[in-house]
Amino acid sequence: MSPMSLQPGPETAALLAAGLPTPFVVVDLDVVGDRYRSLAAALPGVAVHYAVKANPDPAVLVRLVSEGSSFDVASWGEIEQCLDAGAAPSSISFGNTVKRRDVVARAHEVGIRQFAFDSRAELEKLAAAAPGSVAVCRIRCDGAGAAWPLSNKFGCAADEAVDLLRAAAAAGLELGLSFHVGSQQCDPGAWGPALADVAMVVEKLETDGLDLSVLNLGGGFGASYVDSEAPDASTYGRSIRRELERWLGGAVPPALVAEPGRYLVADAGVIQSEVLLVSRRGGGAGRWVYLDVGVFTGLFEAVGEAIRHRVRTPRDGGPSEPAVLAGPTCDSVDVLAEAHRVDLPLALAEGDRVELLGAGAYTTTYSTVGFNGFAPLASHTVGSPTSPSSSAA
Amino acid sequence: MSPMSLQPGPETAALLAAGLPTPFVVVDLDVVGDRYRSLAAALPGVAVHYAVKANPDPAVLVRLVSEGSSFDVASWGEIEQCLDAGAAPSSISFGNTVKRRDVVARAHEVGIRQFAFDSRAELEKLAAAAPGSVAVCRIRCDGAGAAWPLSNKFGCAADEAVDLLRAAAAAGLELGLSFHVGSQQCDPGAWGPALADVAMVVEKLETDGLDLSVLNLGGGFGASYVDSEAPDASTYGRSIRRELERWLGGAVPPALVAEPGRYLVADAGVIQSEVLLVSRRGGGAGRWVYLDVGVFTGLFEAVGEAIRHRVRTPRDGGPSEPAVLAGPTCDSVDVLAEAHRVDLPLALAEGDRVELLGAGAYTTTYSTVGFNGFAPLASHTVGSPTSPSSSAA
Repeated sequence: MSPMSLQPGPETAALLAAGLPTPFVVVDLDVVGDRYRSLAAALPGVAVHYAVKANPDPAVLVRLVSEGSSFDVASWGEIEQCLDAGAAPSSISFGNTVKRRDVVARAHEVGIRQFAFDSRAELEKLAAAAPGSVAVCRIRCDGAGAAWPLSNKFGCAADEAVDLLRAAAAAGLELGLSFHVGSQQCDPGAWGPALADVAMVVEKLETDGLDLSVLNLGGGFGASYVDSEAPDASTYGRSIRRELERWLGGAVPPALVAEPGRYLVADAGVIQSEVLLVSRRGGGAGRWVYLDVGVFTGLFEAVGEAIRHRVRTPRDGGPSEPAVLAGPTCDSVDVLAEAHRVDLPLALAEGDRVELLGAGAYTTTYSTVGFNGFAPLASHTVGSPTSPSSSAA
Repeated sequence: MSPMSLQPGPETAALLAAGLPTPFVVVDLDVVGDRYRSLAAALPGVAVHYAVKANPDPAVLVRLVSEGSSFDVASWGEIEQCLDAGAAPSSISFGNTVKRRDVVARAHEVGIRQFAFDSRAELEKLAAAAPGSVAVCRIRCDGAGAAWPLSNKFGCAADEAVDLLRAAAAAGLELGLSFHVGSQQCDPGAWGPALADVAMVVEKLETDGLDLSVLNLGGGFGASYVDSEAPDASTYGRSIRRELERWLGGAVPPALVAEPGRYLVADAGVIQSEVLLVSRRGGGAGRWVYLDVGVFTGLFEAVGEAIRHRVRTPRDGGPSEPAVLAGPTCDSVDVLAEAHRVDLPLALAEGDRVELLGAGAYTTTYSTVGFNGFAPLASHTVGSPTSPSSSAA
């Protein structure tokens, strides 16, 4: 994808010009729909489960239902959001490897049949509370090449997965396998090493006469940030199809799943924020631009400057100089770009409205309830509520 | 303060035994009141302005109003919270050095008269929108010894403060000076170097015939966390009084202010959370205990393990072993204690309710609006709504 595609469409532009109270994010549902269709086309035979946590705005979910998307959820709260948007329970996978036992039971009761796990204790929950479901064992990836860190929190070694899946089969569950190459994974080859592990597990299970029902290829499909330009859908698709063929050949499980979150919504969103203060700071600290949006109103991914949004200002084109970008709270952590300063116009002034592009993912829900007395990030959508190809359109 | 004081009182204990839905925090208003009175007694002649951002629960604010507390705010939202609780506008200081111009005007209109700043651009706002107020210039501290980091975001050098305060006087504003030694500052001597800078500024202003109306000693008064045991109020008080005498002697400004946040509320609060999963993880990762509270439901200060709460479980006393503590979301960042594992009973199991002590500060408002579909941290209070010595009691 080229950065050009980050240029907001006419409906977004009109809303950005409307003088709404800042800060807010506006998400273009037509971009979300386009992204869904590109990825689905690039991954034929793979069910696209939108990772709801990236942006659970009801309008986003309704649009994706109308596109034919499936969903991946982290909690009962997200299940309700999907069902409210009209998603079929059978289209929902429960991707959190840590679940309340009663929530597993309720999810099973409404008809959800894919549940992630990575430990014997969680498997016992699934066997007891979700009988007959697909127990999807998550194997660990190192996340190399991803912008947002992975940790030891999720996934087991491939050897352990073999043992856990044998136990799952013995408990009467169907078998699945999943992995995650790390969020904002710009290396389309990153799926290769994980699929090599998958192949090893598949081979060992075969010696027991066991087959996988589901292979979940995870998420990681990236968006367009500063110094982190993700490949387009067809590039991801080609690489993943090649690695699937290479490692699994004819042994590809019947159901393939992918879990994009960021890819579908990030580039569809723009945050508009007002400049509160431009200050020349002594002691070599330089020029600081303070915005009314920050780490605690949606930009949590700016902590450690892991994710850096492109910035647009009404003064672009004039003489510029690097500046630190910071949020509005009294918290020292609330700095968006200091190690990596942003080149900003010298004419930028208090009251100007600036835009952070590619801001549709992991913003609204990361917002705090009201730290320092600031309201959560407001969210608006533009574009068609349903797919142009859906009967409801 | 000894860790013993973290033992919850009878009302808190009763609420913790009531089987309320987890996770939640319960704050004992009587502990908040005790803390207020200890600090006020240890700092005679110093107006205690509670830093509302630490916990803006309406019951906490009402109790502190009845104790005679003043308040420090970061935004218009927090001003409204204080006024709703019955605080007098004259008891409110606006401590954020970055403010919307229209908010400065509204704050001035309702009667607020102390405004922080650290730059010429912000000073111009104050001169225009808050005429006749005290412009409180914040000087920079390095934050050495504090658990939560300071950055370049706030404060100017002492030399710069002299110039800024001269400009403030020329603009018809009264003069104030403030500094902040860093949150959870366990070294009571930390105020010394900052007061040396203050003395230098005071001396230079005197040569122009200018005096300070207000000296704000900031916050930083700590609570009781693992490996971070704060001194008691009298120890802080003795050290601060000694340093004031040493550096300012007879030149102490007429109004002294302190801004405790954490000190008043942290140890008054307990979070109760349920164990979702105990898992033995391969590859040397060890035992992981997953809770239903985490970084995105109030424990943001666990990022980087800056703040570590003491943990109480119903199995305490039995054989134990270190474990990793993690939150319930699908986010790898949602880990509470991994570098510093927590010694937890081997018998700890799914469904057990554990308690995080000293959790009344910087928890409710740091909670996200609903990341991963989890509701914000619920908040309850126990204890008397008003001070036993107040006429309203």
